[in-house]
Amino acid sequence: MAGKPLVSIVSAGLSKFGRREGTMCRELFAEATKESFDRCSNLDPIKDIEALFVGHMGESYEHQGHTGPTLADWTGLLPKPAIRIESACASSGSALRTGIMAILSGLHKIVMVGGVEKMTHRTTAEVTEYLAMASDMPFEQWNGITFPGLYALMATAHMNKYGTTEEQMAQVAIKNHHNGTLNPKAHMQKEITLEKAMNSKVVAWPLKLYDCSLITDGASCLILTRPNIAKKYTDTPVDIIGSGQASDTIGLYERETLTSLKAAKIAGQNAYNMAGLKPKDVNVAEVHDCFTIAELLAYEDLGFCSSGEGGKMIQQGTTELGGKLPVNTSGGLKSKGHPVGATGTAQAYEIYLQLTNQAQNRQVEGATIGLTHNVGGSGATASVHIYRRN
Amino acid sequence: MAGKPLVSIVSAGLSKFGRREGTMCRELFAEATKESFDRCSNLDPIKDIEALFVGHMGESYEHQGHTGPTLADWTGLLPKPAIRIESACASSGSALRTGIMAILSGLHKIVMVGGVEKMTHRTTAEVTEYLAMASDMPFEQWNGITFPGLYALMATAHMNKYGTTEEQMAQVAIKNHHNGTLNPKAHMQKEITLEKAMNSKVVAWPLKLYDCSLITDGASCLILTRPNIAKKYTDTPVDIIGSGQASDTIGLYERETLTSLKAAKIAGQNAYNMAGLKPKDVNVAEVHDCFTIAELLAYEDLGFCSSGEGGKMIQQGTTELGGKLPVNTSGGLKSKGHPVGATGTAQAYEIYLQLTNQAQNRQVEGATIGLTHNVGGSGATASVHIYRRN
Repeated sequence: MAGKPLVSIVSAGLSKFGRREGTMCRELFAEATKESFDRCSNLDPIKDIEALFVGHMGESYEHQGHTGPTLADWTGLLPKPAIRIESACASSGSALRTGIMAILSGLHKIVMVGGVEKMTHRTTAEVTEYLAMASDMPFEQWNGITFPGLYALMATAHMNKYGTTEEQMAQVAIKNHHNGTLNPKAHMQKEITLEKAMNSKVVAWPLKLYDCSLITDGASCLILTRPNIAKKYTDTPVDIIGSGQASDTIGLYERETLTSLKAAKIAGQNAYNMAGLKPKDVNVAEVHDCFTIAELLAYEDLGFCSSGEGGKMIQQGTTELGGKLPVNTSGGLKSKGHPVGATGTAQAYEIYLQLTNQAQNRQVEGATIGLTHNVGGSGATASVHIYRRN
Repeated sequence: MAGKPLVSIVSAGLSKFGRREGTMCRELFAEATKESFDRCSNLDPIKDIEALFVGHMGESYEHQGHTGPTLADWTGLLPKPAIRIESACASSGSALRTGIMAILSGLHKIVMVGGVEKMTHRTTAEVTEYLAMASDMPFEQWNGITFPGLYALMATAHMNKYGTTEEQMAQVAIKNHHNGTLNPKAHMQKEITLEKAMNSKVVAWPLKLYDCSLITDGASCLILTRPNIAKKYTDTPVDIIGSGQASDTIGLYERETLTSLKAAKIAGQNAYNMAGLKPKDVNVAEVHDCFTIAELLAYEDLGFCSSGEGGKMIQQGTTELGGKLPVNTSGGLKSKGHPVGATGTAQAYEIYLQLTNQAQNRQVEGATIGLTHNVGGSGATASVHIYRRN
């Protein structure tokens, strides 16, 4: 059964990522869904889409919960079931997994999954506080640590154990900023240099400003259906052939190690097993680079290299465009931006473009197998999916 | 295919509902899960339960999101996938539906669904504000209307169109308070009189204090599996044979009518169709009485009586214990309490007790078919499930 398609993606949409002043989540999501509708002329979205599963991390940003029906209303999907999924920054990775289950269950034939967040109208202090709700309240928040601090703990542990350097982390930022310049929907479209990255303001040592992803507004969506009917809707469906998800303690203090995300390792292994593939089979990947150290952890946790070798891997250029395994061709969270609830399905959108030859000047030639790796919080949730060109 | 069991409930748990000072969501949820584990001695929960879907409405109460892994940690379920579902007060109704899809998908054999909320440590003003996030921010919250106000609009519309009276609404409260006295886990355990209800403080006319459900702490859970293996785990599984869910506009101002919840009607119809049953086949129901008017709307939307006849139905005693169709034998949201995220699966817990003859002095004799009706916000989400004694 390994490698059997679970579902097929027949369309996908992404709003412009960035500082989207004067918009609300509902409008950003409508923008993403419109692209997905336009791409899929054989689909009558209002009639054919039977349910919506949407990742949305924080109701505090817009003082608005109950996101499912709100978005269903603004995209014409009422009265279909519409459910919000929250797994911190892996909210839409979880929504994708839930949508896969909805199709496999037989209860629904076509569903939309997606995600959205509107963040930039809030102050940095507010955003920092809202994001912190994804860490442990009594044991982390009360001690005053925020997400840059949590990832700084992982970074220093990795440096201490494996000799990973600040320069290697900066290389992740340089690569992803370069890729962002090739993506018209990316929040930032500017190259950075090693010197600039290394001299940027320290946020939580060793993480500096350019080690941190962006506070961004944006939305993303996918339309999923049963593989056996996908060609009715598009000539170029993309199959999802592996789905792995796992959880870990929310507090770092309870973990066995800080140099690896156990949930990501398990999720990755489960997804590979389901797909009947190995890490070396992956041609293009979008991984959760909320901080530069997180991309290095992803290389190791996903088996793209051995434990402790992430720093070397970025230095060798393996994950650059033109390298053996390009990672974060979209620009990643670091340059495309990180509207937290939208990130998981935005990663899937990039893989969809890559596997259907629509990634323009960042296209990975001949890519057949893609992977997404979406992490919630400091790793208490991880969601990994594997995709195959149909 | 109608009437074919979708999944079987093999166990269920409920924390004591009430003012649970000094506890957190994680502890309340652990209390509910412990009961479900104790009830099901053939199950090795840590090994056998493969995923958790948990309804949790508001991250503001405890300044804690990312509820899935937090609860999985405290119930021994790590590293299994653990996802938070938010559909306002229908969060755990949605979690139940998601768990059903997880089983039907074939990806999981046994899953836990549940819900939790810790509310009473917050001031009434804070709770009112957090709950309001489930209404429309730009069009309702900004105008200062809160949930009692929204339901008061529905109540006055119903009174105007059908002649429903304040006394009829009070009868709902009297019935549910009586039932609560028979449920040791109910938040309130006191009888009320018509006089007391009618003379209670006006919250939003015509709704008075005793027309409103309770701000409560609590948690609930169910363990679901495939029907063909349910008897391995318990001698008395309860089958779920119908699941309907629908959405409506979040803002009341966009609706065609205020005297009926369209989403509840559609969800109910879908659930009946799946079960191959009609309203008259239901022996016991738990409906979403967040305000007394909501229980009357439920009678009508679920087809227990005709449109406009809800007031008469409560007056005739049909839905009392001993009546033809007892409703809210648990005490309902009105007397058992309404820890918002926990309510949907708490309703299912009561039906599980009823259909397995464990409801003690509130047992509905010979009950074979049960129904739950869980509503999010002012009706933008509705989730209806139908249960059959195995």
